Amino acid sequence: MDDRDLFLIGVIPGFTPQIGRLVSMMNYARYTTLSAVEGLEVDELDYLRDPQSNSIGAILSHIAASEVGYQAATFHARDLNEEERLEWGAALDLGERARREIRGHELDYYLRRMEEVRAKTLEELGRREDQWLEEHTSLGSGQRVNNYFKWFHVFGHELNHRGQIRWLRRHATART
Amino acid sequence: MDDRDLFLIGVIPGFTPQIGRLVSMMNYARYTTLSAVEGLEVDELDYLRDPQSNSIGAILSHIAASEVGYQAATFHARDLNEEERLEWGAALDLGERARREIRGHELDYYLRRMEEVRAKTLEELGRREDQWLEEHTSLGSGQRVNNYFKWFHVFGHELNHRGQIRWLRRHATART
Repeated sequence: MDDRDLFLIGVIPGFTPQIGRLVSMMNYARYTTLSAVEGLEVDELDYLRDPQSNSIGAILSHIAASEVGYQAATFHARDLNEEERLEWGAALDLGERARREIRGHELDYYLRRMEEVRAKTLEELGRREDQWLEEHTSLGSGQRVNNYFKWFHVFGHELNHRGQIRWLRRHATART
Repeated sequence: MDDRDLFLIGVIPGFTPQIGRLVSMMNYARYTTLSAVEGLEVDELDYLRDPQSNSIGAILSHIAASEVGYQAATFHARDLNEEERLEWGAALDLGERARREIRGHELDYYLRRMEEVRAKTLEELGRREDQWLEEHTSLGSGQRVNNYFKWFHVFGHELNHRGQIRWLRRHATART
């Protein structure tokens, strides 16, 4: 991503106009997540504010896992398969299992996984047309959800968790 | 807002196509903020997790204040005027002054203010064309920021703080 264009939501080479705007927003959200965790050490990434809390490392994994879920839903019209559940289940569910399993990694480990997932997303989005954003499925409640919403939700979810990360970071680093 | 269309990001009557998508995202972000604070009592809205923390009430005011700031910037090409600074300064800055000044209000007080601000935003956005979203200003760094980005930032900022609100709510309500 060209940093000069970080604050422009608009057309991006390689994407149709609407998808480009969506990707601009995803890029910016990711940029701020990366800034929020810059320089964190393993013990800060593992820090639990209290016994029910999630670590920053687990939240980073959760952000990537959620994106994997939406890839399956929107690009392949399916839920996560068994292999994906095995790899991403703890990160998706957070809580007890994530506290047990997701720890002890360097920042780079989390960033690399996020990047791999994002690369796949961009590759798939690059193959699609704006009209695809309007395609929708139905929720049990009968409400319709279009693909635009689903990808909006991915970066909205990331921004929501970034708020928690910033808060946790203040406490994790004040402690050390 | 029609709840049936909450999960569709797309065209909205009364807005040009791009602005409609932006408004869909703003609507959804707001809907989730309202869900996150539903039913909170004054002492929960005032709850301070620690002496450096912001209350949920202050964060709600901050969300509205930030929107007022972007109204001034994008609709009127100016900073907040003296009267607006007086009304929104504590909420904008958060911290010590917000902890002192923003407290003791019912949920409805915060929601009404957010709604008044939002009504003004929608009125102004409804008067504009998509092309307006592309208009940009420059940051000191020379980076360009377009109006699309600024309004994306308003709801992104709200989602970020909603993450903090959810976290604070779990603690504020567990306590009572």
